[in-house]
Amino acid sequence: MSDERPDGAAAEGTDPAEVAPDGWPVALRGVTESVVTTLGPNDRWNVAALGLHAPDSSEGVVTARTYGRTRTWRNFAERGGGVVQFTVDPRTFVDAALTVREVDEPVLPGADAWVEVRAERVSAETEGDTTIRTWELKPVEAEVVAERVPTVNRGFGAVVDATVAASRLDVPAFDTDELVERLEYFADVVERCGGPAEREAFARIDEATGWRERLGGT
Amino acid sequence: MSDERPDGAAAEGTDPAEVAPDGWPVALRGVTESVVTTLGPNDRWNVAALGLHAPDSSEGVVTARTYGRTRTWRNFAERGGGVVQFTVDPRTFVDAALTVREVDEPVLPGADAWVEVRAERVSAETEGDTTIRTWELKPVEAEVVAERVPTVNRGFGAVVDATVAASRLDVPAFDTDELVERLEYFADVVERCGGPAEREAFARIDEATGWRERLGGT
Repeated sequence: MSDERPDGAAAEGTDPAEVAPDGWPVALRGVTESVVTTLGPNDRWNVAALGLHAPDSSEGVVTARTYGRTRTWRNFAERGGGVVQFTVDPRTFVDAALTVREVDEPVLPGADAWVEVRAERVSAETEGDTTIRTWELKPVEAEVVAERVPTVNRGFGAVVDATVAASRLDVPAFDTDELVERLEYFADVVERCGGPAEREAFARIDEATGWRERLGGT
Repeated sequence: MSDERPDGAAAEGTDPAEVAPDGWPVALRGVTESVVTTLGPNDRWNVAALGLHAPDSSEGVVTARTYGRTRTWRNFAERGGGVVQFTVDPRTFVDAALTVREVDEPVLPGADAWVEVRAERVSAETEGDTTIRTWELKPVEAEVVAERVPTVNRGFGAVVDATVAASRLDVPAFDTDELVERLEYFADVVERCGGPAEREAFARIDEATGWRERLGGT
């Protein structure tokens, strides 16, 4: 609490490492949360969450993982790619991660940017009964739709993390009590800091998972 | 997990309620996390975290709270205002919330937008030994410096929430074990999803609070 930091540009500002990989519409670092649409056998676009792993340099290749036999896995394998999009609408993240959503057009109305990618499977590992596949995503075409001043809302972050916790509720490797405790915390943050979109998004988490019924222990 | 949602624009997109309050450079909803600089008696600008409470309509007034006898409280009272800024550099949030930082210029190099505000105290309540004051913030002058496609990084959200938990470690009303457990979770998220800026920011939380020494219970 008493740490004094000298004035200076080193304390902040755009990281020099943070440049967009070649052909991508945005800079990536660590894991960037995106939404991907992939064309299914019914010729509709399936909407799912996809974490993008940044390459080490701007010439490197972006990767992503699929966990088990999901629609994204199937459509990547059968169609060879999809459309990755960047949005900050919390409802879109919840629908993508926790519900089955199919649309007629590959680019969602809330996307601030999108990039069509070819997906090539590069490795697979097994964890329990689940095959985790790693895909290289190579950009084909990209567009920036809207730019804005980004703002920080803790309710938004709570919704995103809550979708992760909620999607693990029935995975044996995770402790349900711990996940429910975490969901309670995120619900409280949304209540205190979220806007209308975050409240609506969290209500969809409640609806899709019924986690509140597990309150008070198993 | 089986909730099917019909295709449609109602599922997402910019919320109609989300417009910038008159004179503000960005739209606000719920509580938006900002950084404020206020001029101290030494004629340097103190950098602190400030949660902005959105008004009910675009004609309403933005409010913020100060907790106890902080530098922001003192400088708001003595100087009548400060400069609110919007940034997504996680290091800036940590420095603002957990360290004493003073700079020569009111606008930080990492600010994407700023607004000079007049601060008027409108109410006060007492919680334990702490006087919580509510201030109305009225915009004087504002500038948008940089716009971009916002991206979502769970590590960033974890840093912001961790600064909140870390700042409560020595507040008697909060359970230390619970805060430390939460910090462990955030540290893990930063490790797995953060970029270089998030890792650096989290190292500053470690350094400023020494919370890891409390691991394993009190």
